Amino acid sequence: MELNTALYLIPVNISNAPLNDTLPPGNLEILRGLHHLIVENVRTARRFLKRCDPGFDISAVNFYELNRHTDLAAVGEYLEPLRNGEPMGVMSEAGCPAVADPGALPVSIAQREGLRVIPLVGPSSILMALMASGFNGQGFAFNGYLPIDGKERERKLKELETASRRSDMTQIFIETPYRNNRMLKVMADTLQPSTRICVACDITDPEKESIITLPASKWKGRKYDYDKRPAIFLIYAGNKSNG
Amino acid sequence: MELNTALYLIPVNISNAPLNDTLPPGNLEILRGLHHLIVENVRTARRFLKRCDPGFDISAVNFYELNRHTDLAAVGEYLEPLRNGEPMGVMSEAGCPAVADPGALPVSIAQREGLRVIPLVGPSSILMALMASGFNGQGFAFNGYLPIDGKERERKLKELETASRRSDMTQIFIETPYRNNRMLKVMADTLQPSTRICVACDITDPEKESIITLPASKWKGRKYDYDKRPAIFLIYAGNKSNG
Repeated sequence: MELNTALYLIPVNISNAPLNDTLPPGNLEILRGLHHLIVENVRTARRFLKRCDPGFDISAVNFYELNRHTDLAAVGEYLEPLRNGEPMGVMSEAGCPAVADPGALPVSIAQREGLRVIPLVGPSSILMALMASGFNGQGFAFNGYLPIDGKERERKLKELETASRRSDMTQIFIETPYRNNRMLKVMADTLQPSTRICVACDITDPEKESIITLPASKWKGRKYDYDKRPAIFLIYAGNKSNG
Repeated sequence: MELNTALYLIPVNISNAPLNDTLPPGNLEILRGLHHLIVENVRTARRFLKRCDPGFDISAVNFYELNRHTDLAAVGEYLEPLRNGEPMGVMSEAGCPAVADPGALPVSIAQREGLRVIPLVGPSSILMALMASGFNGQGFAFNGYLPIDGKERERKLKELETASRRSDMTQIFIETPYRNNRMLKVMADTLQPSTRICVACDITDPEKESIITLPASKWKGRKYDYDKRPAIFLIYAGNKSNG
């Protein structure tokens, strides 16, 4: 397949679902043409390529590691092959690169230098959680992680609830998986009883996926166990007809 | 294929790209098992199904139209087959249902009644534009359409720019396609020269896709023609390392 001289943004599966259920076949054709991949972790990147195609010629791929240990000043040099006319790829550990991961930096550098960037289709737990929440999809905000400190966290939750009511927006955030249960308890205790909370967990997993929307009042006292499972939290206090 | 008793959210292509390049093959397997589809427009929905598979047995599908002409009170009745144990689907005109389209209403009703909702993977111009913009993907907001009135629009643009700088968030919005050029001119004239603007146009289209990030100062006087083309506008005034 003839690739463009571009930085391809390559999504990775987010569950054990068959790859055919969450990734377009065209992505693999593009991967086969890339000999330079910027990845968060070389070992897991190799595993993904092998899962895409057990016969994948990994020896032909040059990996460039980009994670919190990377000297950000070096990332600009990673793009040298692209500057010389060779297509490159950016892969994240899971989901879509450059969304809630370090991948945005090489993309930003490519854009600054007028190098072409081509995003590919794949699973995004943030977007899929929004779709399935039933909340307003015509206005929404992703806030990353909330403060860990108890008081600050409660203030932030109330702030997001007010913003959701005032601007009729869905507010989305994430938590470190081993703290999911604690987060949900704080949400149920802190938010207005009528404010709706959606917890989207193990998205795309054929067995474990669970996407449940309930008012805060109903989450209180309800039994759940989201700890150590990948989850997205959404709150909506707006009054759209779908709200 | 054995489907779950659930409301499946089925993305639709957003360009003329081969379906294999933007949709997982698993989606078609699920579509084949659905005999009840909530769609925005029956004619275009039939066309999409025929494009997925020229032999698709459309006569076996019951369509339920959901658009601005629909009596919203009737949408609850649409879900009767699901309540009776039959899987159903929600399809949008383009992209991911329930994001910037009416699909969120049946999803909201299903969630309220404890009916299972399963989102499928597909192209989202909002998310793909964010990925390729190089802007902050760890904090972002989608604002739908901005006010049409000149003064209000300028105020809203400045408001989004300030919010982007203060909370380090990428601000995303859309415009009616025939007004894209005017919108970009107003943005370049209204925003700070250093504020970066990304215009993502014809996403996933093999020939026409264009995703360009430049500071407002460089958009000024630059030649472009985005009118009557599907485009997403993003602005970033934050100072993340990728910014």
